[in-house]
Amino acid sequence: MSRGRAVSPNLALNELVARSGRGDRPLVHLGFGEARLPVLASLRARLAAGARHHGYGPVAGSPAARAAVAGYFTRRGIPTTPGQIVVGPGSKPLLMALHLAVPGDVVLPVPCWNSYPAQADMAGRKVIGVPIPAEYGGVPDPLALRDRIRAARVAGHDPRILILTLPDNPTGTFAPREAVRSVCGVAEDEDLLVVSDEIYRDTVHDPAHRLFSPAEVIPERTIVTTGLSKSLAIGGWRIGAARFPEGPRGRRVRDTVVAVASDVWSSLAGPMQEVAEYAFGDPPEIRRRLRDSARLHGAVAREVHALMVRAGALCRPPTGAFYVYPDLEPLRPRLARRGVTDSDTLRRHLFDRYGLVVLAGHHLGDHPEALRFKAATSMLYGETEEEQEEALSAADPLRLPHISGILTRIEESFADLNPAHDERTG
Amino acid sequence: MSRGRAVSPNLALNELVARSGRGDRPLVHLGFGEARLPVLASLRARLAAGARHHGYGPVAGSPAARAAVAGYFTRRGIPTTPGQIVVGPGSKPLLMALHLAVPGDVVLPVPCWNSYPAQADMAGRKVIGVPIPAEYGGVPDPLALRDRIRAARVAGHDPRILILTLPDNPTGTFAPREAVRSVCGVAEDEDLLVVSDEIYRDTVHDPAHRLFSPAEVIPERTIVTTGLSKSLAIGGWRIGAARFPEGPRGRRVRDTVVAVASDVWSSLAGPMQEVAEYAFGDPPEIRRRLRDSARLHGAVAREVHALMVRAGALCRPPTGAFYVYPDLEPLRPRLARRGVTDSDTLRRHLFDRYGLVVLAGHHLGDHPEALRFKAATSMLYGETEEEQEEALSAADPLRLPHISGILTRIEESFADLNPAHDERTG
Repeated sequence: MSRGRAVSPNLALNELVARSGRGDRPLVHLGFGEARLPVLASLRARLAAGARHHGYGPVAGSPAARAAVAGYFTRRGIPTTPGQIVVGPGSKPLLMALHLAVPGDVVLPVPCWNSYPAQADMAGRKVIGVPIPAEYGGVPDPLALRDRIRAARVAGHDPRILILTLPDNPTGTFAPREAVRSVCGVAEDEDLLVVSDEIYRDTVHDPAHRLFSPAEVIPERTIVTTGLSKSLAIGGWRIGAARFPEGPRGRRVRDTVVAVASDVWSSLAGPMQEVAEYAFGDPPEIRRRLRDSARLHGAVAREVHALMVRAGALCRPPTGAFYVYPDLEPLRPRLARRGVTDSDTLRRHLFDRYGLVVLAGHHLGDHPEALRFKAATSMLYGETEEEQEEALSAADPLRLPHISGILTRIEESFADLNPAHDERTG
Repeated sequence: MSRGRAVSPNLALNELVARSGRGDRPLVHLGFGEARLPVLASLRARLAAGARHHGYGPVAGSPAARAAVAGYFTRRGIPTTPGQIVVGPGSKPLLMALHLAVPGDVVLPVPCWNSYPAQADMAGRKVIGVPIPAEYGGVPDPLALRDRIRAARVAGHDPRILILTLPDNPTGTFAPREAVRSVCGVAEDEDLLVVSDEIYRDTVHDPAHRLFSPAEVIPERTIVTTGLSKSLAIGGWRIGAARFPEGPRGRRVRDTVVAVASDVWSSLAGPMQEVAEYAFGDPPEIRRRLRDSARLHGAVAREVHALMVRAGALCRPPTGAFYVYPDLEPLRPRLARRGVTDSDTLRRHLFDRYGLVVLAGHHLGDHPEALRFKAATSMLYGETEEEQEEALSAADPLRLPHISGILTRIEESFADLNPAHDERTG
């Protein structure tokens, strides 16, 4: 009677861990893309104040919320007017509405966030995957992109949307300016609409770095999505936004997304719009929290990256978000002796033997035979809000006992995977 | 580039009115299904307390929120366990997820709420409309239903879902027990899944009446949807729930809807789940508010019905929700002289000549040539929270000056539509 769909693997994993007993050795949960940080008191206050918005408001969002998001983009180098903005209950439904609004097939980097292909499939779109380069994720290799688009057309498909992730989930990296330019050139030549998922924009580790968006190269064909879930650790509040291009083409897509929204979710909840108005306004306490969080994300992600590399993994050095995406291919012979031969047996081995919870690469569209997984390093900041606050304010969070202890446990687990390597280099 | 979709006509109308200047004669907004009542202080307090839920939680909802909704149904004569419940950001996305989860075409009563056919269309489903009887709405005529299903199959369609609305939007009525039984019999014979939209359940005007649900007749094939938007006037908070059947078939549909939810909206926002836990728990202050609201809805809807009938309209007497759905067919010759010949010219005439805002029947799937419209009587309770509170607590709300004044204006407008009739009976 119903279709054979499964719950999004990241959310399923998170619920599984939440239900698991702790036993004598607690699990190390690296399998979920959530910043485990406290919610700012000022955000809580705005939510409470927003209770007064209990009637249905404009589908696209209140003028004040949309103006705040427009200001957010403008301050980040992408001049924007409120009319270009639509807010929604997370960036997920906005992305889904785009699939329902814009016909044609969908081009995705491989690997990528697990909900992109699931959404495309629900909307009846074919997914065309293009590999990412060895240096960064979220943006496909431009030459491979052109080839795959043309091959897809020859095969009778109709690629129309290209989704990019800047910074990227799952690799924790972002594409350099030249790569963004090249891929935008291909999108222009091939008449694709680009959806630039920039939900991790404010988690770039280097505070001096300004992220470069496709909206700065091909503004008339770029839709940017964002949200507060990752940067402000309020994934459970479900606040997202989309920025549409100026001009008639952009307005048409925006109007169609609003039409879809009107029949699927009506609007972002009024109290959440008040939170959006405040947080996208970038007041000093928000800017401070963004800066402190990005610093912490960088410190811990770089350390996990370093220990993966010490254990013999290939891994792109993380520069944004809070992920690493190691490849244990160099350890394949050794792992094969333990029965680990692919992404799924690797995930299971890390869980059974070490209590490490990771998201297997095949859930992200990667080859099932590859020995790759995503580890969310943002889950390591502490169990309690006190520990998390300490992590945010510490000069060197890696020296806090609750963080260094868990990093040591991860290091020992991976060293145990590759003891010979460890002896050779140690 | 994008599909030709339009914003849901009810939401579009509401935004239009909100933007309109007041002029010397304010508009009478009867075009939007919102209970214009204040939000209870206890609901505001729970929202603020719920701010602590800022992480991603279970897709289906927290155990506490689901237990509360299960209790809500159980107390209303439909025994339910928490495992049968999924909460979401309104009942709209839950209904959309059902279309994405369950294949096949969709059978709808005509007229019906405008988002049902829009959602079916977005999910690539064919809509099969079946007329309602002259006495009530929300549930099609059983004989016509059987005929249309069989004709649709002969035409190559695949009807699998039947949506019923109890009580009904737009007619403000509910189907009698025998009608529900008959239609459920057809659903059983024809192997349809029934979606019973019961979002207006707690607005039944007669406090002694217990609404009869298809879930009591064919529990194994009935999904019930509900929400807090209508009964507690918090449409802007976006809180909905769905109840799935027990047993393997119901569990399969539920699991697929949760899978869709995981990739489309993740979960209902945590603070809203805390509101759901409280409000679906039916504490005394919620029960009192539900009772007072239903009494007010009944008093005002019955009065608007009476004045429509006095003006010569055909109209089903309202028994639930806060709508009337008049048919001005008896006035057709007179209206034709003013250039009013169909649903759209009627709506425009009421707006231009009398400043009355109504939703034209063709937006609800009705024949465009019919002289029918929906009027939401819940918009008449007052402009300020003070007036609305007064309306809730008044022994006879119709005698409050701010309500009687606007009723007089509506009465005079419709009397002017049919002056001969007025003279004859007056």
